[in-house]
Amino acid sequence: MLDDKVNLAEKLAAFSEHWKPKIVGYFNGNKVYVVKLQGEFVWHTHDDTDDLFLVQSGTLTMRLRDREVTIGPGELFIVPRGVEHCPYAAEETHVLVMETVTAVNTGDAGGPMTAEPEEI
Amino acid sequence: MLDDKVNLAEKLAAFSEHWKPKIVGYFNGNKVYVVKLQGEFVWHTHDDTDDLFLVQSGTLTMRLRDREVTIGPGELFIVPRGVEHCPYAAEETHVLVMETVTAVNTGDAGGPMTAEPEEI
Repeated sequence: MLDDKVNLAEKLAAFSEHWKPKIVGYFNGNKVYVVKLQGEFVWHTHDDTDDLFLVQSGTLTMRLRDREVTIGPGELFIVPRGVEHCPYAAEETHVLVMETVTAVNTGDAGGPMTAEPEEI
Repeated sequence: MLDDKVNLAEKLAAFSEHWKPKIVGYFNGNKVYVVKLQGEFVWHTHDDTDDLFLVQSGTLTMRLRDREVTIGPGELFIVPRGVEHCPYAAEETHVLVMETVTAVNTGDAGGPMTAEPEEI
């Protein structure tokens, strides 16, 4: 039902895994996905896409090499392409994310947290 | 401060006009803006951009030629490029919108509701 409206809370209620992107739509060559975060991700960079984060619940700490940004519900943060970052969430945090359809969640880092997003 | 996090409610509290897009960020060649809607917009089409709507408060009715979609808080709707649409809001409704940086809010229709977005 990717051609219809999407209730983000309903989509988030439909799965429980952490760090597993679930695609809810496509916009101008970008995928739009929801994801549940808890703990620390990996430091990585996307050379070919900006990374848009819009927190739905919880708190996302975006670690950058020169600072940390604390992002709460209703707050948006865009990591420009080429900027190294490492998402961290002390408690379970629900986020809407956008990046190009070809982007890999772990960017240049790869490794065990790399996940193929699935449509829900 | 377009390079920092954005609190959408704070941005929306900073202005009162209807149908005047206020840019809060840029993502992969798209502008990200908040807007307050009330009443009926104009029927229009964007040939070169999808149109992403994420309702923050109120209710957005998206009129399409074959149906209407009612979109509430926490709900996302993406109008694909080339699809004629007319947003309507019976009460004041706050929305996050994304479209390409070169897109005009009234698309192919033009007219008095055409607005140049400004950054806030």
